[in-house]
Amino acid sequence: MKADMFTQEELRNLPRKGTPQPADHTQHAFYGRDILSVDQFNREDLTYIFRVAEEMRAMVKRFGSVDLLQGKVLANLFYEPSTRTSASFMAAMQRLGGQVIPINNVQYSSVAKGESLPDTVRTLEQYADVIVLRHPEVGAAAVAARYARKPIINAGDGIGEHPTQALLDLFTIYDELGTIDGLKIAMVGDLKYGRTVHSLTKLLLLYRVEFYFVSPPILRMPETILQRVRATDQPYTETDNIHDIIREVDVLYVTRVQKERFEDLSEYEAVKDYYVVDTELMRQAKERMIVMHPFPRVGEISYAVDSDPRAAYFRQIENGMYIRMALLAAVLGKA
Amino acid sequence: MKADMFTQEELRNLPRKGTPQPADHTQHAFYGRDILSVDQFNREDLTYIFRVAEEMRAMVKRFGSVDLLQGKVLANLFYEPSTRTSASFMAAMQRLGGQVIPINNVQYSSVAKGESLPDTVRTLEQYADVIVLRHPEVGAAAVAARYARKPIINAGDGIGEHPTQALLDLFTIYDELGTIDGLKIAMVGDLKYGRTVHSLTKLLLLYRVEFYFVSPPILRMPETILQRVRATDQPYTETDNIHDIIREVDVLYVTRVQKERFEDLSEYEAVKDYYVVDTELMRQAKERMIVMHPFPRVGEISYAVDSDPRAAYFRQIENGMYIRMALLAAVLGKA
Amino acid sequence: MKADMFTQEELRNLPRKGTPQPADHTQHAFYGRDILSVDQFNREDLTYIFRVAEEMRAMVKRFGSVDLLQGKVLANLFYEPSTRTSASFMAAMQRLGGQVIPINNVQYSSVAKGESLPDTVRTLEQYADVIVLRHPEVGAAAVAARYARKPIINAGDGIGEHPTQALLDLFTIYDELGTIDGLKIAMVGDLKYGRTVHSLTKLLLLYRVEFYFVSPPILRMPETILQRVRATDQPYTETDNIHDIIREVDVLYVTRVQKERFEDLSEYEAVKDYYVVDTELMRQAKERMIVMHPFPRVGEISYAVDSDPRAAYFRQIENGMYIRMALLAAVLGKA
Repeated sequence: MKADMFTQEELRNLPRKGTPQPADHTQHAFYGRDILSVDQFNREDLTYIFRVAEEMRAMVKRFGSVDLLQGKVLANLFYEPSTRTSASFMAAMQRLGGQVIPINNVQYSSVAKGESLPDTVRTLEQYADVIVLRHPEVGAAAVAARYARKPIINAGDGIGEHPTQALLDLFTIYDELGTIDGLKIAMVGDLKYGRTVHSLTKLLLLYRVEFYFVSPPILRMPETILQRVRATDQPYTETDNIHDIIREVDVLYVTRVQKERFEDLSEYEAVKDYYVVDTELMRQAKERMIVMHPFPRVGEISYAVDSDPRAAYFRQIENGMYIRMALLAAVLGKA
Repeated sequence: MKADMFTQEELRNLPRKGTPQPADHTQHAFYGRDILSVDQFNREDLTYIFRVAEEMRAMVKRFGSVDLLQGKVLANLFYEPSTRTSASFMAAMQRLGGQVIPINNVQYSSVAKGESLPDTVRTLEQYADVIVLRHPEVGAAAVAARYARKPIINAGDGIGEHPTQALLDLFTIYDELGTIDGLKIAMVGDLKYGRTVHSLTKLLLLYRVEFYFVSPPILRMPETILQRVRATDQPYTETDNIHDIIREVDVLYVTRVQKERFEDLSEYEAVKDYYVVDTELMRQAKERMIVMHPFPRVGEISYAVDSDPRAAYFRQIENGMYIRMALLAAVLGKA
Repeated sequence: MKADMFTQEELRNLPRKGTPQPADHTQHAFYGRDILSVDQFNREDLTYIFRVAEEMRAMVKRFGSVDLLQGKVLANLFYEPSTRTSASFMAAMQRLGGQVIPINNVQYSSVAKGESLPDTVRTLEQYADVIVLRHPEVGAAAVAARYARKPIINAGDGIGEHPTQALLDLFTIYDELGTIDGLKIAMVGDLKYGRTVHSLTKLLLLYRVEFYFVSPPILRMPETILQRVRATDQPYTETDNIHDIIREVDVLYVTRVQKERFEDLSEYEAVKDYYVVDTELMRQAKERMIVMHPFPRVGEISYAVDSDPRAAYFRQIENGMYIRMALLAAVLGKA
């Protein structure tokens, strides 16, 4: 699907979709736009989205839901299962007063009859006002966006992008620590294949931070990402042992090291414990820092850490709902 | 399930279901009735349904949704997957202010435990106010309707009926061309097994049109349908080549010619290009005409035709939502 | 999952969850509590739940839905399919004005990636206000309840508990016959493995009834349950033939005798007809009595009995929705 992908320049200037509305100078730039990639955001956009997400949280805490998107319908189109992301978007739309059409078993349906992604999204946009798309292939969201007249929100396209995850990660850092500039941020685990750490790193490059990339040698952060870090003159350190950096960091962003990535299992056995966060490790960490994880976890963070106030991963999940509320409201012209 | 099917006479006089309401002389005949077959409609019914569908469109364009069916619940019971039809009914109910219980994987559930269709619908009607049923067996909707106290809407029963598809097809013709009487209507592709062309033909017999049936010889319109056409003295032409008729027609209704229907694949190869609509073919068509397709398409209409204003198939899909809104409102006494 | 299960004492004093609300002395004990087991209810609780269920029915009959739970979201988490129970909870939440996130194919999703039940419920409670859980393993609901900060409602955990089924069964008896004390109640079929008859028996022990346990010898009521019956000094009779007791009983609660339970199929053939309720059997029953069944049925009650006014099983299904409305409203502090 490469041929249909957008350039970085195009991403920053995605065309506005939908019927033109009467002029409203308060309307922000996201109205009628697709949400495809972290590359489409600048720092001002992020500040705006985070402010709206904070408002959404305040409204949910107080009222449970609002009627901002009453009369609007979201098609939640998942070509591969993802309970967390799907449920997060559903709850976000419902708490905005909108309705959801969940489409979760696409492989069994029209698509099995051979229908193309462009036809599927052009069908669903006849019924819905916005489409959230999860697809196993890189570039699928961009293809959908080229064909759809209604906004597409990318909820993950294979090893490509998952921009709402990166936004909720960044929002959590900002929300928990009150700032992003100046922080020391460690990313731990599988940095080679981990979609979330790549996207989060790109967003963090809009700020001034110090990076610690902690991984086994065979799962290092790709050179393409490191080049982007160097291009902004932000300092970074690479290491294979979490203990080297635990005392320094403000953010410990943990991802899973998958056994399947290793050809030689003895290599896996040798390193795996370097990447487990337990209460003993947390005793070495600063008093004011946070532990994050994109979930699901499978042993990378022990359950005993859950009661540590620095464990931010469940609040991180909750923030996902507010970020998605903010984006849905924004692309539908209600934020 | 043949034994439980209704006669044409019975279809025209389906009993009214549900609790009798205080007399309301404005209530139309569809209140409390099942929607099972195109045979149950007369011309006056269609005029009524189309007028309500137009009102629904006006309301959706203006408000997104209305609260006509607030407090009502639809059980969307799909024994086989159909993303388009299922999503269309869900959006229709949601835009009417109602709620939906989607039941999409019935094969894995009670039915797998051996429960009968009558028990399943009598269970669901305890929770819901109306049931939409998609089932792979001919006559399933009629069986359900015999047992249920609440209205059943047939969303396709195998090679049997799919009345809401026929209604949206006819509504699209009426809506796009402003009339039905006097039109020249070509149906193209697999006319032997195509459920949609059979049902649409039956509805068109309530008007005065001229038919063109375009298919390979082995996929001709069945004699039973042709007899009904002859019985109403409407002219029809049969041909195997779309080029013979493209200059004449007001409506080109395209369906898929499936390779699997041919025993001899060389026969398929010989004819398949007669049934592909591309920009070259469209140059020969009238300026005021429309191309329709029940979707999904798999190559019968080239993507380049999509931008032709005569390509009505996405508007046809949108109309499906308005027709289903009209029917849901009608059987629940709110239209 | 045994280790995480609650004692009977703990069940009767489940901790209150959620943010403390401003003092409201009208709020009942179920606010913020889990619904895990029939053992957590006393007679006063049941009287309260039944009164709320009656109010729910009156509201549904009159308005279809209310807005008691507007702004609330239910995560309907089903690790195994159950159309009836899932649809019943969805309709209950929708008719209360709340929203539902249905999660029906958990095996294909995060769980397939190895996520634990505690992490799944702690994720979903970031989005939702209450979680309904169906799981194939005994004790799963108790595990979920230990970890979740939001209320968990057990919708069946393997051969363990299914408390809302038992509550709707008991409510149906009360509603149909106006009382529970003094009734003669027969349970018929597979009393050894039948989760529903065990739970219903436990609830009935809070009243004064007379039991008739009707089953093949190899499917008798387990000794643990019989001990609890004896401990309350309630009379009970065991028999293997429904004809022995049909003239006496006020309630005939029928369950399925599964062929698979028999090692020797000739034993099955010999007894199976003792447990079929047909019109002939019903002629011997009292004029004022009811026939119940937890459904689905597979031949245990002939269709001809459905039109008998004593056949209460479809009303029983309807009552399930009112009971679940009552429980949802209660745990969310709105009943």
